[in-house]
Amino acid sequence: MNNIFEQIRDYILSDGDLIVVSHFSPDGDAIGSLLAFGEILKQLNNDYILAIDDTLPQKYNFLPGFNQIRNTQESPINRVFERVVILDAGSLPRIGSVKSCINKQTRILNIDHHFTGPSYGDINYIDVDASATAEILYGLCNFLDIEFTPRIIYGLYVGILTDTGRFRFSNTSARSMEICGDLISKGVDPSWVTENVYYNHPFEYLQTLAEVLLNMKLYFNGLACIISLDQNEKIKDTDGFVEYASSVKGVALAAFIYEREARYYKISLRSRSRIDVSEVAKKFGGGGHKKAAGFLYRGGKDDLIQNLLDEFEWQIKIRNIQPDNSLFEQPQEDI
Amino acid sequence: MNNIFEQIRDYILSDGDLIVVSHFSPDGDAIGSLLAFGEILKQLNNDYILAIDDTLPQKYNFLPGFNQIRNTQESPINRVFERVVILDAGSLPRIGSVKSCINKQTRILNIDHHFTGPSYGDINYIDVDASATAEILYGLCNFLDIEFTPRIIYGLYVGILTDTGRFRFSNTSARSMEICGDLISKGVDPSWVTENVYYNHPFEYLQTLAEVLLNMKLYFNGLACIISLDQNEKIKDTDGFVEYASSVKGVALAAFIYEREARYYKISLRSRSRIDVSEVAKKFGGGGHKKAAGFLYRGGKDDLIQNLLDEFEWQIKIRNIQPDNSLFEQPQEDI
Repeated sequence: MNNIFEQIRDYILSDGDLIVVSHFSPDGDAIGSLLAFGEILKQLNNDYILAIDDTLPQKYNFLPGFNQIRNTQESPINRVFERVVILDAGSLPRIGSVKSCINKQTRILNIDHHFTGPSYGDINYIDVDASATAEILYGLCNFLDIEFTPRIIYGLYVGILTDTGRFRFSNTSARSMEICGDLISKGVDPSWVTENVYYNHPFEYLQTLAEVLLNMKLYFNGLACIISLDQNEKIKDTDGFVEYASSVKGVALAAFIYEREARYYKISLRSRSRIDVSEVAKKFGGGGHKKAAGFLYRGGKDDLIQNLLDEFEWQIKIRNIQPDNSLFEQPQEDI
Repeated sequence: MNNIFEQIRDYILSDGDLIVVSHFSPDGDAIGSLLAFGEILKQLNNDYILAIDDTLPQKYNFLPGFNQIRNTQESPINRVFERVVILDAGSLPRIGSVKSCINKQTRILNIDHHFTGPSYGDINYIDVDASATAEILYGLCNFLDIEFTPRIIYGLYVGILTDTGRFRFSNTSARSMEICGDLISKGVDPSWVTENVYYNHPFEYLQTLAEVLLNMKLYFNGLACIISLDQNEKIKDTDGFVEYASSVKGVALAAFIYEREARYYKISLRSRSRIDVSEVAKKFGGGGHKKAAGFLYRGGKDDLIQNLLDEFEWQIKIRNIQPDNSLFEQPQEDI
């Protein structure tokens, strides 16, 4: 551990112009980690640029330093850097156009908690046991004796909070909790953060959610639930919609079908049973995890739903999911 | 601290038949703390009854030991006990009919994190800095060297999880997080708990939520939001509905009006500004906290809404809440 932290320290203290980037479609961990890393660099006297090749979700604009992140879709960067730090991105294509800042001489530092195959950095710190990239950076801050300023504590807290789905997903660990506790003791207001991230929706979001919920449909004795939203002008952010489908008592498989463009759909899948939805997604050319996956589909909605239901039915059959035992299983046997 | 824990230990080790009770309208902390305390008693060789004078919310039925809690509305207890332990109840009327188990000889142990005036126990451990009664019991378990069995760890985790509103309310502290981290390291599956408590709704709950959201109304340039549900046969549990009203961007004051019986309403209020909704509730004969309060109202719905809006308008005026600054304020000035 210390060895890799020492390498990172030497990298930060070395010369060369520097850009820090995270993945497009940025989430709370991408943005929070970027801001925290910027502050680490600042405290160690580096000049740097923070970049993401995408529009930033405005719900994170309460984060200290948010406005310093450059959207390279709007303001491209057309030069090569000597040092490129890549956070939370499992592969180089995930940083979009910022790839053009890299040539053979560029030294890449890659910090991530996803495992997605061969490492692409000159220094790679991949910790798949970390709940979030922010969790790795917390350890780095301690190693480097960084002052826990608002940019650090809020960035790290939001990273862990959002990547654990508000302490809900299976990556939520004793350590994630412990770190968040320490960040609170260092000044984070957990209530203010949670309100900003999870309780701050445009009116149209809730109206659209209502319409979507009214058309919720159950299949296979309540084992599967599908909700959908046709192309619309009102909202673009449908974050969290699929969770409503998977929150119905007894539902083992859930899908949210969102028509992004005419006849072009993004499908989000959730499992609360032994069924692995990444297998389902793969059959449609997508991917993901066991409990959460997705794919894109071009064609008619009726066909899509029929194909999806056929696959759901097959999965329910081969995994022998019964309405009685469909609920997410208990982790312990003896309780 | 140790002195009060020693008193509690001596109480537990003393003789006399024993009943443990929590408040009616039980929440996760009432139920979780009751189960954890039962396990403490068991490990210290006590016989005991766990009682709540109300129907138990079935969403907590995943908790180990849940079925051992006696609903004294269904199965009254008509005898006096030598020892009565009262958890999480700010006053004696909060335990309902279990009061009849107490006479002058009964020794009462009262453990709570609410401050509501004079203590009523022979031993009182009131810690208003604890996020939940479960947080106090965690300290007690450590002091008594109790084994952290599933009943203990799941009871305590659910108590803290629910009383902090899933680490959202202002009582969420570094210590709450630290304890939850420790409970995870001792075996709690945080994902399983969170799914059970927050993502396990009857289909009708979500359908009703959709109807309620479709009729959401904004007032005073979006500073106030009111949602309502008329008397219905579909659902009785409307937990969480008011949060949708207070989750609209820009909303400073939110209300959920629920018609329990014909022309008899329960109103839940939320503030995300300097306005103290307990003041609003008091004017209607209710009460609560600064950020969350409520009251009951008998009469016509139109009158109710008009009276509520008049009060909202007045509060917005005297507190000078503007659409621009209406969002919950930042806790720090320098970030």
